[in-house]
Amino acid sequence: MAASILILNGPNLNMLGTREPAIYGAQTLGDIERLCQNTADGMGLKIDFRQSNDEGELVTWIQQGRPDFTGIIINAGAYTHTSVAILDALKAVDLPTVEVHLSNIHQREAFRHHSYVAAHAFCMITGAGADGYRYALDKLSKILSESGER
Amino acid sequence: MAASILILNGPNLNMLGTREPAIYGAQTLGDIERLCQNTADGMGLKIDFRQSNDEGELVTWIQQGRPDFTGIIINAGAYTHTSVAILDALKAVDLPTVEVHLSNIHQREAFRHHSYVAAHAFCMITGAGADGYRYALDKLSKILSESGER
Amino acid sequence: MAASILILNGPNLNMLGTREPAIYGAQTLGDIERLCQNTADGMGLKIDFRQSNDEGELVTWIQQGRPDFTGIIINAGAYTHTSVAILDALKAVDLPTVEVHLSNIHQREAFRHHSYVAAHAFCMITGAGADGYRYALDKLSKILSESGER
Amino acid sequence: MAASILILNGPNLNMLGTREPAIYGAQTLGDIERLCQNTADGMGLKIDFRQSNDEGELVTWIQQGRPDFTGIIINAGAYTHTSVAILDALKAVDLPTVEVHLSNIHQREAFRHHSYVAAHAFCMITGAGADGYRYALDKLSKILSESGER
Amino acid sequence: MAASILILNGPNLNMLGTREPAIYGAQTLGDIERLCQNTADGMGLKIDFRQSNDEGELVTWIQQGRPDFTGIIINAGAYTHTSVAILDALKAVDLPTVEVHLSNIHQREAFRHHSYVAAHAFCMITGAGADGYRYALDKLSKILSESGER
Amino acid sequence: MAASILILNGPNLNMLGTREPAIYGAQTLGDIERLCQNTADGMGLKIDFRQSNDEGELVTWIQQGRPDFTGIIINAGAYTHTSVAILDALKAVDLPTVEVHLSNIHQREAFRHHSYVAAHAFCMITGAGADGYRYALDKLSKILSESGER
Amino acid sequence: MAASILILNGPNLNMLGTREPAIYGAQTLGDIERLCQNTADGMGLKIDFRQSNDEGELVTWIQQGRPDFTGIIINAGAYTHTSVAILDALKAVDLPTVEVHLSNIHQREAFRHHSYVAAHAFCMITGAGADGYRYALDKLSKILSESGER
Amino acid sequence: MAASILILNGPNLNMLGTREPAIYGAQTLGDIERLCQNTADGMGLKIDFRQSNDEGELVTWIQQGRPDFTGIIINAGAYTHTSVAILDALKAVDLPTVEVHLSNIHQREAFRHHSYVAAHAFCMITGAGADGYRYALDKLSKILSESGER
Amino acid sequence: MAASILILNGPNLNMLGTREPAIYGAQTLGDIERLCQNTADGMGLKIDFRQSNDEGELVTWIQQGRPDFTGIIINAGAYTHTSVAILDALKAVDLPTVEVHLSNIHQREAFRHHSYVAAHAFCMITGAGADGYRYALDKLSKILSESGER
Amino acid sequence: MAASILILNGPNLNMLGTREPAIYGAQTLGDIERLCQNTADGMGLKIDFRQSNDEGELVTWIQQGRPDFTGIIINAGAYTHTSVAILDALKAVDLPTVEVHLSNIHQREAFRHHSYVAAHAFCMITGAGADGYRYALDKLSKILSESGER
Amino acid sequence: MAASILILNGPNLNMLGTREPAIYGAQTLGDIERLCQNTADGMGLKIDFRQSNDEGELVTWIQQGRPDFTGIIINAGAYTHTSVAILDALKAVDLPTVEVHLSNIHQREAFRHHSYVAAHAFCMITGAGADGYRYALDKLSKILSESGER
Amino acid sequence: MAASILILNGPNLNMLGTREPAIYGAQTLGDIERLCQNTADGMGLKIDFRQSNDEGELVTWIQQGRPDFTGIIINAGAYTHTSVAILDALKAVDLPTVEVHLSNIHQREAFRHHSYVAAHAFCMITGAGADGYRYALDKLSKILSESGER
Repeated sequence: MAASILILNGPNLNMLGTREPAIYGAQTLGDIERLCQNTADGMGLKIDFRQSNDEGELVTWIQQGRPDFTGIIINAGAYTHTSVAILDALKAVDLPTVEVHLSNIHQREAFRHHSYVAAHAFCMITGAGADGYRYALDKLSKILSESGER
Repeated sequence: MAASILILNGPNLNMLGTREPAIYGAQTLGDIERLCQNTADGMGLKIDFRQSNDEGELVTWIQQGRPDFTGIIINAGAYTHTSVAILDALKAVDLPTVEVHLSNIHQREAFRHHSYVAAHAFCMITGAGADGYRYALDKLSKILSESGER
Repeated sequence: MAASILILNGPNLNMLGTREPAIYGAQTLGDIERLCQNTADGMGLKIDFRQSNDEGELVTWIQQGRPDFTGIIINAGAYTHTSVAILDALKAVDLPTVEVHLSNIHQREAFRHHSYVAAHAFCMITGAGADGYRYALDKLSKILSESGER
Repeated sequence: MAASILILNGPNLNMLGTREPAIYGAQTLGDIERLCQNTADGMGLKIDFRQSNDEGELVTWIQQGRPDFTGIIINAGAYTHTSVAILDALKAVDLPTVEVHLSNIHQREAFRHHSYVAAHAFCMITGAGADGYRYALDKLSKILSESGER
Repeated sequence: MAASILILNGPNLNMLGTREPAIYGAQTLGDIERLCQNTADGMGLKIDFRQSNDEGELVTWIQQGRPDFTGIIINAGAYTHTSVAILDALKAVDLPTVEVHLSNIHQREAFRHHSYVAAHAFCMITGAGADGYRYALDKLSKILSESGER
Repeated sequence: MAASILILNGPNLNMLGTREPAIYGAQTLGDIERLCQNTADGMGLKIDFRQSNDEGELVTWIQQGRPDFTGIIINAGAYTHTSVAILDALKAVDLPTVEVHLSNIHQREAFRHHSYVAAHAFCMITGAGADGYRYALDKLSKILSESGER
Repeated sequence: MAASILILNGPNLNMLGTREPAIYGAQTLGDIERLCQNTADGMGLKIDFRQSNDEGELVTWIQQGRPDFTGIIINAGAYTHTSVAILDALKAVDLPTVEVHLSNIHQREAFRHHSYVAAHAFCMITGAGADGYRYALDKLSKILSESGER
Repeated sequence: MAASILILNGPNLNMLGTREPAIYGAQTLGDIERLCQNTADGMGLKIDFRQSNDEGELVTWIQQGRPDFTGIIINAGAYTHTSVAILDALKAVDLPTVEVHLSNIHQREAFRHHSYVAAHAFCMITGAGADGYRYALDKLSKILSESGER
Repeated sequence: MAASILILNGPNLNMLGTREPAIYGAQTLGDIERLCQNTADGMGLKIDFRQSNDEGELVTWIQQGRPDFTGIIINAGAYTHTSVAILDALKAVDLPTVEVHLSNIHQREAFRHHSYVAAHAFCMITGAGADGYRYALDKLSKILSESGER
Repeated sequence: MAASILILNGPNLNMLGTREPAIYGAQTLGDIERLCQNTADGMGLKIDFRQSNDEGELVTWIQQGRPDFTGIIINAGAYTHTSVAILDALKAVDLPTVEVHLSNIHQREAFRHHSYVAAHAFCMITGAGADGYRYALDKLSKILSESGER
Repeated sequence: MAASILILNGPNLNMLGTREPAIYGAQTLGDIERLCQNTADGMGLKIDFRQSNDEGELVTWIQQGRPDFTGIIINAGAYTHTSVAILDALKAVDLPTVEVHLSNIHQREAFRHHSYVAAHAFCMITGAGADGYRYALDKLSKILSESGER
Repeated sequence: MAASILILNGPNLNMLGTREPAIYGAQTLGDIERLCQNTADGMGLKIDFRQSNDEGELVTWIQQGRPDFTGIIINAGAYTHTSVAILDALKAVDLPTVEVHLSNIHQREAFRHHSYVAAHAFCMITGAGADGYRYALDKLSKILSESGER
């Protein structure tokens, strides 16, 4: 059975590209999902791509990670910086996790420099735009192959 | 078409005046809504007055701000001090925003002195009680008139 | 009428014992609920035992504390350290409250040493495992007896 | 006898609009005084509108607040952030006080986020421009009516 | 042979209830000792209940913990917040330890929020009054039973 | 020629006792001046007792300290905590200086715990009320006698 | 019966003047005791003048303050900056307390600027040398007279 | 018309050299003014050299900077470290500004390391003694020549 | 002409895999260079792969970035956290830059959480092991294609 | 007469090696005393080797340093990090002092990185185990020889 | 023999003006060297003007300061903020030193506000551009004349 | 084969004793090397004694530690406080390491109290002058003997 990756997107990521494309670019979260789907297809991976504005819903989705999923990619958006609950869920499920941010969080306001997610995710890719999801899939794919979970 | 203002109230504001009126006063959130409605009527503005205890729901309501609304009044309650997600939603929608607090947050515990909302709202009215909503409507009304959105 | 205690459990506590029992022990939240129920039965107390991953739902449950409940036991999990909204709800309802944590939060990461809940709860029991709930029930029972609410 | 409000303006507010109107707008402190005078006339209030660059003079003016005045509106400018002496004067006179700032101080440099005045003023309106003075008069007028001092 | 618990009380706890009972309550440290004795009797435990104002004496008593004692209950009073020496003694003896405080230290001055004792004690009960000692005995009794030391 | 002591009082000390005597007591700054005058008379000292709300005027008065004065007593009020200029003036004149505060500044808000004056004054008397001035005169008198300046 | 004042001296104050008089002056703690005795005699007060290097002993002496003493003068030496236990003892006994330091603690290392004693003592005299004890006796004498305890 | 430079000196700079020349040197502020006058004469510049102990007066002088002056040299003395009002005045007038200090402020107490003036002045010369004024005049002269204001 | 990427490795990265392979793995910096070379070959990119223990040499290499290189990949090792000089060199040359770390720096000691490099690099990949270099090459390749520099 | 060195050991050092030798090693404080005695014998020095759990007793022992002792070696244990009283005693006696710690305090918890003793001791040897005492004796012996006190 | 001044330039200053002259200006480090040479010629001073990207090389050059040089001008670039080694070298050589920065470091990122060099250099000129070197030469020339080293 | 110890000296230690012997003493680094050589000879150890002003060179020398050396003595001078690169090199090589400083770093400026080297070195000897090297050799010799590497 193909390994399946849970790809989680936090608050406001549903707003990507849907308004003011002149400013923020025309790429939508749907575009990123398609990029992930295509990438996963090429790797023989299955993905489940979700977005929520709700911290509790994200926690619940992470908790459901086992046994359906073999890895997690998470762009927790603003909850990256404030949610101990998401960190705890990631720790409880303890799946290989890669953290992604579209822009480099280290170049934004000081309160965005710290990530609770980073206390669990073995890898962070920040500032690579949508490609960050692609690299995350590649990395998880390699790790799962090495550990024999694929 | 009349401009419409989204008025958002955060966690626990639904508790106003419903219990122990001897202590907290008899004014309920419903009273504040009526005050806002009356004020808006006098200005030829429409309002949509909501309350939620849920950070994610508040984020979602803010995201729906365009194109239905031309301005936001927000009393984010406790999320004022902890929610980067609400700040990000306000930034994404980028409507003229006024922040309101019933009591002066600068006179409460130190952790209430900082507001994430204030990083986006052009104006904060704190400590004016329910009148703060009235002033916020007046200010937004003037701004919308000047910008021709009314 | 028997006094009734609201027992609230925050995010990820539903994960207790359901996976990796070799590591975390086999005790589930259901086991803790049964322990509480048995203890309460012996004291002639009624309990309502709930869990949520959602900050807003916890806030709403606390708000509903009066008049149905005469005391609150809360293990807010990760929200202990981040939720001003839960603190405000506890203050608004103003019922006798005991804070419980399974492991001693003072021995974990620095960001878990501070509790917003502790600014309202008159008592904290941390590190006593499930017995902490039992002691909390005992303490509330005594307090309610003394105040004549039982 | 009509209630009288002392309206105090701190350092550099005398510079408003007198130079570089293309940048800072053409509104002068005189314009704000006229707005206050018109607003007060409509409310049946008297005002005394003053400006000083001198911390000591502002302290002395506040001290003279009783019995001539029944409320204070203060935009302490830069002294907002540095003057314990102005805070002490406000505390000594103990009149109902509203703090006003033309732009939102929470969006400026970090050293402008803290206000000593806010430790006494029951209400702060920041970022509403000259309208802040108008709202402050409205609020004081209501308070004085309720307390029977008008 | 019955397990024996060392119950240590730090500076000023000898003052409990001996003066101003209208304010602090009439319960003395002797009362707490009797409560502990009765509780221990019911559990088949022996206790040794001591108080000292002297940091060095408390250190020495802790050091004597083995082999006479199988667990420690400690209310270190003011030394909770300042004594690395007591922490080191607890670590050296390494007996199961429960920390007790009569009132909730998290609601007092900031310098009382930190406990050196908590770096060793597996459990803290704070704010439960004299009942905290009772719960501590119960918890130690259970732990000793489980580990076969009783 | 009798030694002369400059006694300086900072902002708002002119408000002492002139309003709300039920709260702040009936003692005025004039009363304190008379106490100082009587005390000085008894010691064969001359005094010059002044008050200003103006930081610059206090600086200028201190500068004039030599050669007319042989010692300074200063209650800088709010400027105690904010004025480097007063500290620099005291250092430049370099007369024996005693700092006085009516109430104990260490028991007030945190921002009143630090004194710039204390970086120069060899002695601080805080919380002794008007008697603090009396002790300051006594101390300066003794020092001047010992140094032969009297 | 004459009022009696407990005068406590903390660690190392017994070293005063006993060595290197060329540097530290020849005044010994015995000299200060004689100064206090003479001052008290002139006021019709009794004193009990003690010194200890031991924090616990100082705590115990303070606890014995009632009913034998009507006021406390304390120079806690190094324990000023580190002893919560002494603060708690002073609070428990709750006698009028004056804090004395021979040199101005605000001009020494940063860790000596904070005093736990100052959280209870209504008055601090620091930097007046042995005269500080004299002023403290005078102040306590006045306070006791006013309160009728003399 | 020759360009004119406003040279401002803050509190206590009037004390330079007027007392204890053996310690502080014999150079007075008058000497510095003559040095500036001679330097300016050689450059064909006019200067207006002033000193005040009063923050408000310095603010007012800066405000008068336009149109009479084309540049400002400011040694704000102690107000360098505490005056937001002077910074605001400099920003409002927005003339080319050079900050001068006689001794190197980075080698003095920590509270003198920060300068509010430096947030506006494009250049700081600290520790060059009176020559700092000469270099400041030279720099302003060059800048004014380049910008065609001379 | 093919675009060329400068790949810089900081201090101690030459130690990779050369000792204790059981602990640190057998992958050497040579292996990583080969991985990069192969990856670049597949993309039609040229690379220049270097390592230095010397901050100054790294600065000099970065300075030489133009016109020979069209992008930089940098794993500055320990200098990531301490070198303002490397940051300044990157800013001066201003080429598209990706920052790589083998292990996730956010999970190591606190002093490794901050990166000066991140103030310039638009993207950071941390914790992906040698694959991080591969993703960095992919990202630079895409950016160069989009900007037409390839 | 042979020089004599006072060797002081603080709280819990009496616990060395007496329990859990498998963990902490079998070396006791008695072993260290014998090592010191043998070393001193070889140098023609006399030693007085003491241990106390009591801060006050350590202070008193240090005070007795002159004229019986010509140097001090101190391992203050936990009091290293909390005792200003011990620092003050060392300063008062002012004998050549070497600070010793068995393990490297800079590698333990952050609160053990600071030493009050180090503000007086000219030399610290930390992490050399019992050999640290030997080196301390060697160093003191050399210093005493050079100063002619031996 | 003419006095000789060592002029040191730190990392990245070799990049001045060599690229993007439209942005950074066309002035190169060579231009600054020529300005210094011409200035020194006019003063009868000799200079040795150097640049290095290497902290260690700068340290070595400073060490060679005596006896060849009589003063140092240093623009340490990024090492200003990070190099204790350069500070130590300056202290060891102890020549009159002036610190220069082209732009005002107090207006850049917070980590550039602190200078280790400033702990030794008697004078800092920051923000005067290349003229800062000219003023530094003038100041050193005067100091050397006064001290007779010229 | 005799064990060999690498003795590393950081920046500015080459300046020892070569200038101003009246102040710093006449002992040179060459003297210390001879002391080390003689000490090592007596122990049957070989040493390699080096000094560099260059952080990168020190890193490279440490890297070369294996297999030529069996222990490291390091006085990293100023790099002690700033070099993560040296710490990383020490960790990578992982030889028994003793840190030496001539004067007690805990008595110097605050920025010298922290040592990155101390995070790896098992032992620090600070303030023992050149004898510190001797003790370090003795300690390493003992450790190597015990571990059988000698």
